[in-house]
Amino acid sequence: MSKLRANLTITLDGFTAGPNQREEAPFGDGVDKLHDWMFAAMQDREDGKTGIDVDFLRRSEENLGATIMGRNMFGPVRGPWQNEDWKGWWGENPPYHHPVFVLTHHLRPDLPMDGGTTFHFTDAPIEEVLKRAFEVADGKDVQIGGGAATVQQYLRAGLIDELHLVIAPLVVGDGERLLDNIGTGIQGYEVTEVVSSPAVTHAILTKR
Amino acid sequence: MSKLRANLTITLDGFTAGPNQREEAPFGDGVDKLHDWMFAAMQDREDGKTGIDVDFLRRSEENLGATIMGRNMFGPVRGPWQNEDWKGWWGENPPYHHPVFVLTHHLRPDLPMDGGTTFHFTDAPIEEVLKRAFEVADGKDVQIGGGAATVQQYLRAGLIDELHLVIAPLVVGDGERLLDNIGTGIQGYEVTEVVSSPAVTHAILTKR
Repeated sequence: MSKLRANLTITLDGFTAGPNQREEAPFGDGVDKLHDWMFAAMQDREDGKTGIDVDFLRRSEENLGATIMGRNMFGPVRGPWQNEDWKGWWGENPPYHHPVFVLTHHLRPDLPMDGGTTFHFTDAPIEEVLKRAFEVADGKDVQIGGGAATVQQYLRAGLIDELHLVIAPLVVGDGERLLDNIGTGIQGYEVTEVVSSPAVTHAILTKR
Repeated sequence: MSKLRANLTITLDGFTAGPNQREEAPFGDGVDKLHDWMFAAMQDREDGKTGIDVDFLRRSEENLGATIMGRNMFGPVRGPWQNEDWKGWWGENPPYHHPVFVLTHHLRPDLPMDGGTTFHFTDAPIEEVLKRAFEVADGKDVQIGGGAATVQQYLRAGLIDELHLVIAPLVVGDGERLLDNIGTGIQGYEVTEVVSSPAVTHAILTKR
């Protein structure tokens, strides 16, 4: 059965982003090294190397048919769109290659990109967006791309089936903490797998 | 030079204790397995086995000359002492074997126990207590025994030199979170070591 998954890298103190997120620093201050493991794993994969991080990276990417993300993950613009110039952080060919639903109160026309990614802007309830995402995913899984607030919404509602946390060896102390504001949501999950590479620790939380 | 150290086991979501801490459940609800790694390591050590957890357990215990703890770690009694019957969670021969300073507004006479542990109850400022602890430790290190609030006080003040976090593979969602209420305190630290055993992940945070 199709699953709703999410994969986020957090600091040792639980943050997905530091303070002062902005266009020049999408993840804010103090977390420059947060995703180093991922870039290294992408390079390793390209070089034909294997390893724990390469395996988890592959796993996080495989069998995905749709993505849901928050508006703040799509871009740094807050409030109404001034124009439609902003097309995401990812250039003309975003790495999704499938439909991406962007949760926002500020609607825009669908935005088709190269490589099969189309951004759909929606202000529908999160359950409704998920239903549409499962439909277009056509049997594959759906992922929450981020950010923290969007993952929290879906965790609160108990809708995420599998949460892959990558814990990076840094502390930031301030910013967006992932496992906050989720009420008793997390109590429906158990840690089913923990594996550490030299770079990071991978933990899989699975809905009971 | 003598260091101030602390060693705490936290859940994957950062809690040292769950909700509803009480005499029958000193660490509250939902965290029964939090310290399983430690009991297993103690048993392994007794059986002469080695391993990552045994090594880190030994490291957490060695070269300690004094302990500082919060009153809630000493016992479940809140507010003024009704009597002096409560002598800590640890029986007649507590595992400290050195002076233990208990931070509390409710003073009591010194409480000498078997095996070299004496509990000193103090309402002095935390810096002053630390100074006294270093004096009696006589060249050895001092540890903050816990709980979270006491560690937070010392972290906020930037007084902890080395924080050993043991991350256990469970989530609890509520209770006492260690790395909260520390302002910018944590930004003075860097993660200098991360090692995972099959049971837990050990992370060492060192003051810059």
